[in-house]
Amino acid sequence: MSYKGYLIDLDGTMYRGGTAIPEAVAFVHELKKRNLPYLFVTNNSTKTPEAVASHLRGFSVPADEKHVFTSGMATAAYLSEQKPNARVYIIGETGLRAALSQAGHVEASQGVDYVVVGLDREVTYEKIKRASLLIQQGATFIATNGDNAIPSEEGLIPGNGSIVAAIATASKTQPIFAGKPESIIIEQAIDVLGTTIEDTLMIGDNYQTDILAGIHGGLDTLLVYSGVTSEEDLQSVKVRPTFTHRSLAEWNLFD
Amino acid sequence: MSYKGYLIDLDGTMYRGGTAIPEAVAFVHELKKRNLPYLFVTNNSTKTPEAVASHLRGFSVPADEKHVFTSGMATAAYLSEQKPNARVYIIGETGLRAALSQAGHVEASQGVDYVVVGLDREVTYEKIKRASLLIQQGATFIATNGDNAIPSEEGLIPGNGSIVAAIATASKTQPIFAGKPESIIIEQAIDVLGTTIEDTLMIGDNYQTDILAGIHGGLDTLLVYSGVTSEEDLQSVKVRPTFTHRSLAEWNLFD
Repeated sequence: MSYKGYLIDLDGTMYRGGTAIPEAVAFVHELKKRNLPYLFVTNNSTKTPEAVASHLRGFSVPADEKHVFTSGMATAAYLSEQKPNARVYIIGETGLRAALSQAGHVEASQGVDYVVVGLDREVTYEKIKRASLLIQQGATFIATNGDNAIPSEEGLIPGNGSIVAAIATASKTQPIFAGKPESIIIEQAIDVLGTTIEDTLMIGDNYQTDILAGIHGGLDTLLVYSGVTSEEDLQSVKVRPTFTHRSLAEWNLFD
Repeated sequence: MSYKGYLIDLDGTMYRGGTAIPEAVAFVHELKKRNLPYLFVTNNSTKTPEAVASHLRGFSVPADEKHVFTSGMATAAYLSEQKPNARVYIIGETGLRAALSQAGHVEASQGVDYVVVGLDREVTYEKIKRASLLIQQGATFIATNGDNAIPSEEGLIPGNGSIVAAIATASKTQPIFAGKPESIIIEQAIDVLGTTIEDTLMIGDNYQTDILAGIHGGLDTLLVYSGVTSEEDLQSVKVRPTFTHRSLAEWNLFD
């Protein structure tokens, strides 16, 4: 099958921890050679696109900041559609703050339109309290992503879903999620790529995030068995990925 | 009806915010006069019993630290039954830390038997991470109480249920709750009071916490309409309180 644009997950798809997946790296080189647009789509909102691209170049992946789309950028773009130059209370790190600011949104701690929550490894009771109070006062609650836990050298550590749970519990309000498996990040990424839903393929290793996001966005999907989801895991899913492959070496761009 | 011991809620039952409820204060004076044992039972784990008693004496309620039983003390007593002198990682404030220490438990941050979580207005990502990792390593997860939010001058601010939600989400583990509406706090309070389930009355203003805790513990219950729960609210409950009254002036100790 031939697609005009590719959305590609990072961890488990392009690399595993500190090790590149060679078939995936070769695949992206091939995309670049053929001038096929691609965008790396990540739920990680803590880094700027330049930092993510730099990390990818360390694995010899052809990538600059234009090739990266984070859940923070998806949130900022979504907000711009809803309310340009919004006043936003932010829980998050550098990447999220930069994405919101670059999209023209203004950080504030009172009288805000939105409470935007991304992973913040310096989150405190005061921040959770402030977010909960602002949501109770009418601000719309948006989360970059809902990942419950993230792998680290110490084991599984709290992801943004953990911080969101604290705020949702205190404010009795569920957020809108921008990241995978929701479709907002996919819709915004396609806008950036300049392709259409029909012409774009979503590639990832995690059925529950990458593939479901593609399905929710109406895209064809390719699951690679290089990370989280195994063939066995797929036996219980309702909607299968459009394609499954051992590795991206099996994907023929000429098919 | 005549009972030999009384468990009594605080906020909404003895006082509302900074104002005493006179009928309740008179009721406790009457208990004291008749030498009927009573224990104030609170989900607040942040204060020591002496601090709670001092606050009550400010409302002219006859109370010293022996009359106070917090969710932190219930947790400490419960732990002592399960594993005396346990190693415990603590998220919480002065009251919880003192209760655990006085019961012989040892605070530690590695190789612990239990992770005990109470309201901590200085909770951080690092504490939530540490708790999550220890639970994943096999520590038993215990929460003093699950109150989602607590009233304050600023509005409803995050309660311990909010912190617990963050840890439960990251560790994919639900805690054992000691506080109301669970029965652990009631069972431990009766132990302290020296009465029996049949001889003890639970009094409170909140059906969802006080009365349900009494019901779960097998006690007779008295709901006073001086706080959270209204007569209308009771129309939808499965199990009604044993008694309901406008105020404790209507409760006749000679009946």
